[in-house]
Amino acid sequence: MDGKSLQMGIVQPKAIPQGTPEYEEQRATILETFAAKVPHDLRLPAPLISSPPVDVSTVPATCGFLDATELEITESHDAVSLAEAIAAKKMTAVQVAIAFSKRAIIAHQLTCCLTQWFMEEAVKQAQELDTYMEKNGKPVGPLHGVPISIKEHIPIAGTYSSQGCLASTILDKEDSHMVSILRRMGAVFYCKTNQPQAIMHLETTSHYGRTLNPFNIHLSAGGSSGGEGALIAMKGSVLGVGTDIGGSIRCPSAFCGIYGFKPTSCILPMKGFLSHAFSAELNILCSPGPMCRSLRDMELFTKLLICAEPWLEDPKLIPMPWTGLNTNMTRPLKIGIIDHDGFITPQPPVQRAIAWARQRLADPKHAALFQIKPFMPYSAAEAWTHVRRMYWPDGGTVTKQAITAVGEPILPLTDSIMSDAARHGMLSAEDVNQLRFRRDEFRLRFADSWTEQRVDVVIGPAFVGPACAHDSAFYWSYTSLYNLVDYPGVVFPTPIKTEVEDRYADDYCVATLCSFPSWVSSLESYVVKRYVHLSSLEWVIPQTDRASNSL
Amino acid sequence: MDGKSLQMGIVQPKAIPQGTPEYEEQRATILETFAAKVPHDLRLPAPLISSPPVDVSTVPATCGFLDATELEITESHDAVSLAEAIAAKKMTAVQVAIAFSKRAIIAHQLTCCLTQWFMEEAVKQAQELDTYMEKNGKPVGPLHGVPISIKEHIPIAGTYSSQGCLASTILDKEDSHMVSILRRMGAVFYCKTNQPQAIMHLETTSHYGRTLNPFNIHLSAGGSSGGEGALIAMKGSVLGVGTDIGGSIRCPSAFCGIYGFKPTSCILPMKGFLSHAFSAELNILCSPGPMCRSLRDMELFTKLLICAEPWLEDPKLIPMPWTGLNTNMTRPLKIGIIDHDGFITPQPPVQRAIAWARQRLADPKHAALFQIKPFMPYSAAEAWTHVRRMYWPDGGTVTKQAITAVGEPILPLTDSIMSDAARHGMLSAEDVNQLRFRRDEFRLRFADSWTEQRVDVVIGPAFVGPACAHDSAFYWSYTSLYNLVDYPGVVFPTPIKTEVEDRYADDYCVATLCSFPSWVSSLESYVVKRYVHLSSLEWVIPQTDRASNSL
Repeated sequence: MDGKSLQMGIVQPKAIPQGTPEYEEQRATILETFAAKVPHDLRLPAPLISSPPVDVSTVPATCGFLDATELEITESHDAVSLAEAIAAKKMTAVQVAIAFSKRAIIAHQLTCCLTQWFMEEAVKQAQELDTYMEKNGKPVGPLHGVPISIKEHIPIAGTYSSQGCLASTILDKEDSHMVSILRRMGAVFYCKTNQPQAIMHLETTSHYGRTLNPFNIHLSAGGSSGGEGALIAMKGSVLGVGTDIGGSIRCPSAFCGIYGFKPTSCILPMKGFLSHAFSAELNILCSPGPMCRSLRDMELFTKLLICAEPWLEDPKLIPMPWTGLNTNMTRPLKIGIIDHDGFITPQPPVQRAIAWARQRLADPKHAALFQIKPFMPYSAAEAWTHVRRMYWPDGGTVTKQAITAVGEPILPLTDSIMSDAARHGMLSAEDVNQLRFRRDEFRLRFADSWTEQRVDVVIGPAFVGPACAHDSAFYWSYTSLYNLVDYPGVVFPTPIKTEVEDRYADDYCVATLCSFPSWVSSLESYVVKRYVHLSSLEWVIPQTDRASNSL
Repeated sequence: MDGKSLQMGIVQPKAIPQGTPEYEEQRATILETFAAKVPHDLRLPAPLISSPPVDVSTVPATCGFLDATELEITESHDAVSLAEAIAAKKMTAVQVAIAFSKRAIIAHQLTCCLTQWFMEEAVKQAQELDTYMEKNGKPVGPLHGVPISIKEHIPIAGTYSSQGCLASTILDKEDSHMVSILRRMGAVFYCKTNQPQAIMHLETTSHYGRTLNPFNIHLSAGGSSGGEGALIAMKGSVLGVGTDIGGSIRCPSAFCGIYGFKPTSCILPMKGFLSHAFSAELNILCSPGPMCRSLRDMELFTKLLICAEPWLEDPKLIPMPWTGLNTNMTRPLKIGIIDHDGFITPQPPVQRAIAWARQRLADPKHAALFQIKPFMPYSAAEAWTHVRRMYWPDGGTVTKQAITAVGEPILPLTDSIMSDAARHGMLSAEDVNQLRFRRDEFRLRFADSWTEQRVDVVIGPAFVGPACAHDSAFYWSYTSLYNLVDYPGVVFPTPIKTEVEDRYADDYCVATLCSFPSWVSSLESYVVKRYVHLSSLEWVIPQTDRASNSL
């Protein structure tokens, strides 16, 4: 067995529904293939797996698998400083590839954040980069030796991808467009990260398992790019690629306390990201973006991809100039603060995070920079009704068929997000036409409301609460609104944590639930199990600044 | 009758099919309402209407209705010089409004280019502008006093619009977005221009009548913005607004020997242009643009609209910076010449126009500016198959119902463009999803082919021949290809005219017809009735320059 075995323990505190025996057999084979690549000296002790601490985020540093250099490499850098350090020959690409590969596989055993792990290939790739550097005295490109983690559905040549269900798994022969650009710039690929069934939950539970929140394994890591969220929070990655059609970059970034950027659609390349036509995109466009540990890494990632002129290969992309952090400001920025979307009341830790942001921004010493005012998003409840229909113009039938074809069970959150559209079944072309007309009308009304409120940018909750309990992220309205209107958004961490003293209004459930009975159990879960680490705020870049796509 | 009457003669050498008596009665009422606004002293003599010359383009100058100043105003200016002359007080807005209104109604009687004419309102608007100028000593905006003609379906407050059939006629209470911007800049509105049934012919035949080519009334003025094409060629307008989803700006510009620009979609505002959701736009986006007499007027129109930041009101629009004629060139422009699209052989006058362009561009004195090479558009025949399906995801049923609801007859070119899609009927959402996936795959292959051929810009035919005979524009492939891939394109005139000596290859029909039997009669019409005035070339702005949308 070459120091490896068919089984590898993964922390999984809450079971996921079982499929047919045939499906479970296929699933076991995939997990065994994964396990076969992991040497025994990188496997955590069985007792730790079976009785893990609630907060597993510190285990990588304490488990003894990483030496001091590896800890320094994985903990003390963002992508910018890592690229600088490698270019300055303070560390080699191989050292970096080994450190992150090791830490990633530790993170995986604690949070189930990966779907594939290929350390050997990564080290080989890094070795070639080191050789290049030795020979040429300079890096191959601006990402020379920077490891980048990639969400499961995004093809990397020579690895597998799946599209939200086991049956869709294929071996990719070619890099997808974005991956090929990143590789050309020197990025090293070493793992792929978990995503949920249908790639359409704000949680991450798939045939690979359930991804856990590193700071509390009884909470969700968010989704659909939850593997990225958990891996980056575990410091098993410095920079990862997510995709977002309803909050899939922003939610896991918020739940895991990292940075995430969902650009406007058709800005960053995603050619080849899906092997099939996804009918949600008849109405709502998906957008790829960075998940990382610093604001400047979001800037680096976006700037480099735009500088590569990806629109020459993919005519869907808009050749928009990027000014990013160098965007010139000629007057105070008008910042709208969202306390509440008029639909679902944010929970106390989120309210405190908003108060924290307001207080900092309203400091008189920033008066020349910022002008703070309240902001109410236009018709969030209506947006949520629209968007749920728009995700499934086929009533979800194509997705459900693909999942169940091999006996994979439909997970509760898959059912939940499809439920409204399923009642309408497969729409006709004219139905879709009318749906899009209403979408466009909503977008116009939203833009009017934004203009009337005279803001440049808004800050608000990324989710109704901090990281929620497993299987309970039913309401996406704080993020999906910005997919419906296609505005870019950034998630950034705050220092606010849930406190034991956090008190929910006596009527919190009742008030919120009057029209949404399906919330009863899950909202209770929020209230009871609010072991929360981080809240995040969402920084939505305004339409007025789309010209420069400034962060 | 106040010098007006219920009847007004319009040259109509080829009848259009009749509808039910009820429809014909409604139609007569609309035409009478139009006629009632036209004073008798602007009506051409009955003998001229009943026995018109083949070329009516010179009639406005010879009919005696326009004095020397009015002839100078309408014949010697483009929009740029007209705006300059008014700003310099060399002429008043009222003078200009009267001159163009008069010439437009003369043009209409000869070519059926208008659907509405409102000289009184235009003069009143111009009077207010003159008053403003007197009071403030400066123009109200950069288009102060410039008359702009508007295609029928585009709303102007207080006038009617229709959406491709009589039943869709409504009185508009508000300006559409673009019209409101142009009005704010000082533009004067005085007429609306004819468009075909369903707004989906490359010819212009509607319940208002058949628009004729000013240079040969037995030929088509092109479509769907054919009213604009004829009116501008008759010098009854200096600048007009068209829309293009298959060639509707470019074809009439080519047929009438004027300039036309179809930008990439989502660049210029068209909010409010259609009163309903048009299902073609599930697949192919429409684009509005200028039709005019000079290159710099296309620049003026586009620049002014982009400077108005229309994306703040309409979030569908892309806030793309405009460099236009000031686009910086740092190396010779690689120009691909299209002799033939590999699908339908261009006719001899078009071949001579291409040769003319090649010869001028290849002149050694331009070697530092241009590098000339052949270009073959990728898979034009396949594109034509795709695009015809994509225009009608509903099988054309919604449009046909709207037309026939009041007894309006379906015109032959409406039937023709729908025929392929009609066989498939109303598609399902998943069918549309698959259709769009194939569209996107085509776009990628087209972009690859463009890149492999290493061109910056291509020049080619705007149509298989020069202006064609009535009811014969069945093949849009030279223009619709660029709607399918959504590249911007400019049409400009050449000095080439059809000559009696033009010889078609003996096997021209046979070779072209082998797979397209429907061409038999109409191609014969081309060959037999090739009384052609102008050929045009299409200048398609390359993907690589989309960043600056340069002309």
